[in-house]
Amino acid sequence: MPVNLVAPLAADLLPVPGIEIGTASAGVRKANRKDVTVFKLAAGSSVGAVFTQNRFCAAPVQVCQSHLKAKQGIRALVINTGVANAGTGESGLLHANQVCQALAELLHVRADQVLPFSTGVIMEPLPVQRIVDGLPLAIADLAQDHWSQAATAIMTTDTLPKAVSRQIQIDGATVTITGISKGAGMIRPNMATMLGFIATDACIPPVLMDALALDLAQASFNRISIDGDTSTNDSFVVMASCKASHAPIDNWSSNNGKALKQALTDVARWLAQAIVRDGEGATKFITVTVEGGKNSAECLLAAYAIAHSPLVKTAFFASDPNLGRILAAVGYAGIADLAQDKIELYLDDVHVVTQGGRHVAYKEEDGKRVMKQSEITIRVLLGRGDASETVWTCDLSHDYVTINADYRS
Amino acid sequence: MPVNLVAPLAADLLPVPGIEIGTASAGVRKANRKDVTVFKLAAGSSVGAVFTQNRFCAAPVQVCQSHLKAKQGIRALVINTGVANAGTGESGLLHANQVCQALAELLHVRADQVLPFSTGVIMEPLPVQRIVDGLPLAIADLAQDHWSQAATAIMTTDTLPKAVSRQIQIDGATVTITGISKGAGMIRPNMATMLGFIATDACIPPVLMDALALDLAQASFNRISIDGDTSTNDSFVVMASCKASHAPIDNWSSNNGKALKQALTDVARWLAQAIVRDGEGATKFITVTVEGGKNSAECLLAAYAIAHSPLVKTAFFASDPNLGRILAAVGYAGIADLAQDKIELYLDDVHVVTQGGRHVAYKEEDGKRVMKQSEITIRVLLGRGDASETVWTCDLSHDYVTINADYRS
Repeated sequence: MPVNLVAPLAADLLPVPGIEIGTASAGVRKANRKDVTVFKLAAGSSVGAVFTQNRFCAAPVQVCQSHLKAKQGIRALVINTGVANAGTGESGLLHANQVCQALAELLHVRADQVLPFSTGVIMEPLPVQRIVDGLPLAIADLAQDHWSQAATAIMTTDTLPKAVSRQIQIDGATVTITGISKGAGMIRPNMATMLGFIATDACIPPVLMDALALDLAQASFNRISIDGDTSTNDSFVVMASCKASHAPIDNWSSNNGKALKQALTDVARWLAQAIVRDGEGATKFITVTVEGGKNSAECLLAAYAIAHSPLVKTAFFASDPNLGRILAAVGYAGIADLAQDKIELYLDDVHVVTQGGRHVAYKEEDGKRVMKQSEITIRVLLGRGDASETVWTCDLSHDYVTINADYRS
Repeated sequence: MPVNLVAPLAADLLPVPGIEIGTASAGVRKANRKDVTVFKLAAGSSVGAVFTQNRFCAAPVQVCQSHLKAKQGIRALVINTGVANAGTGESGLLHANQVCQALAELLHVRADQVLPFSTGVIMEPLPVQRIVDGLPLAIADLAQDHWSQAATAIMTTDTLPKAVSRQIQIDGATVTITGISKGAGMIRPNMATMLGFIATDACIPPVLMDALALDLAQASFNRISIDGDTSTNDSFVVMASCKASHAPIDNWSSNNGKALKQALTDVARWLAQAIVRDGEGATKFITVTVEGGKNSAECLLAAYAIAHSPLVKTAFFASDPNLGRILAAVGYAGIADLAQDKIELYLDDVHVVTQGGRHVAYKEEDGKRVMKQSEITIRVLLGRGDASETVWTCDLSHDYVTINADYRS
């Protein structure tokens, strides 16, 4: 059961002028389900993207990086579920290119103007002919108001589609932002991918897009963890169709730039948090904030050590305020000169640890009260500086083991 | 159920001349169980030790480090289970020192000739008076043949005591090595400690002991992982009483030095592997070997990424040859310039992956056959150099979640 997450109403997802979406049932792995999605971008759209850091990155990730480098102006995205096309060697690259070529011919663009994405089982060959055969159906389905269908078609073992829209005003023009996401890190073992797509009709020059995608990811998808496994296929794409009637954004520190970036960040963060809320077996949504670090990097070390610790996660599943586990995780996070007598720990409003030891006023029943909630904030103060970072994670339950042990069988 | 591990017979554990052991029931946390253990070392014994790298290391670890630095010649060890004396601030240090002082007075040695060890719940105060009251009972119990009792007395939630002996001949003299161990990293959540103690009557000068302890740990306790959590209390101690009638070892590259070090390594590795075999919820013992690395460090990165991956571990629990998870773990291990088309993967004798893709002769039923075994070797070839490393781990089962979620409640 997802934690405080419901499926979006199709009516709440706003069309983005310049962006059309079509889906089709191509039978990639299962019959009678939508498993191929095509995004068609108006000429003049800008695209930025970030991809998995996994050295075993999938063939479509490698093709995306090559096509973005060609700088021909991206005009389409094609996404399949069912097979990840990862661990597939040379033939995997060939298959990903074949899909791009087929879509390019149908849309009368160049193959390097198409970005391919795959999510699903690793080490199995992509059924390229079935996907190619499905493309005309997806193209026939193209429409601006098909976001809800796309959010469903990119799902693998997600229990709910994840999608959200926002609108803001820039220079009197209405700007729309709509995004969808699926999966979480390697949370979906065979269906191994986190995918995020955000589109806006705002006017953003291509030169600003890569930094934008990275900044958005750092504030959202790069701040979540379910199980610490990094997928071979993770991809996050931002598209801007430039159909809104405002002057192009010239930098991110102008008032218009700040407002747009904040709205995009809100959407990206909502989509990233939705992935955690739908995490495998998740029963709790946990915010981990580390403050008082010398720099961001060490705050993240401590935050991820807590977020990845199976012992911390099982304690939260059990609503057991066994909070020494959090201290231990901070201790092994890799901050070489950490002084334990500077550490403070709060669980929501409850002051648990002061100067590295149990707070004299801390009572176990206060810890237990917070642990029983479905949304909990862990706050650690390192007492070393002014940097802070926040990551989002979930607990580790019996269902996580069941899903990952039994899924493929 | 431990994987291919049985409790040692007391008769198989050989006394080590110069080393006496006594245990007592002090009621540290539970009544009527042996929970305090004292080792008494003959004058002239040498001691080497390594400790947790966790910055939140427990008070007894800090006291051990300080006493070893004093170089007064260690004459006794005192170990309690039940309470870890970690996350206890200044009063924790005071308590650990009080225990050393009390034992020192009873044995007529200096307090800085005593090393203290604690294992148990974090963030609770050490019941120092109960431990001090138990020390005379432990001293009255001192005998060379009490290894079996000690192996049991240092247990927390271990399902079996872990102990082993070896004998070798050096210059015609019989040299005995006996060791005990408990726990594994943070595998024991509240009872959070890996402890290892090895004693020999061999003659080893003090100056050789610290490097020996580190080398032994690197080949054994530092090559295992259950859940990736590093405890606040991990300690490993090697004691040499110098009662055997051979010339002192002058270096580790002489024939006698090599033979002794090999025998000590065998004991340390047996004790470390026993911890994995008794890992929480473990149903399989998994050897992860990474070969063909540029150096040891990158082999370890890949081996630990595999050993820590919840997805790899749940697949092994399910006997599901979902082996793309292993490739993905190698990919995110942090080897920056890894070329995926050089990767080979074997599961025991089955060649699964070649040149980064599925081997054409690989059949799923071959993978499944190996996955069903209780002992499995994962072998990854990086194709970058001549270095190799091996670590040992276990699978991740429902029982792991049950034990860690429900233990304290």
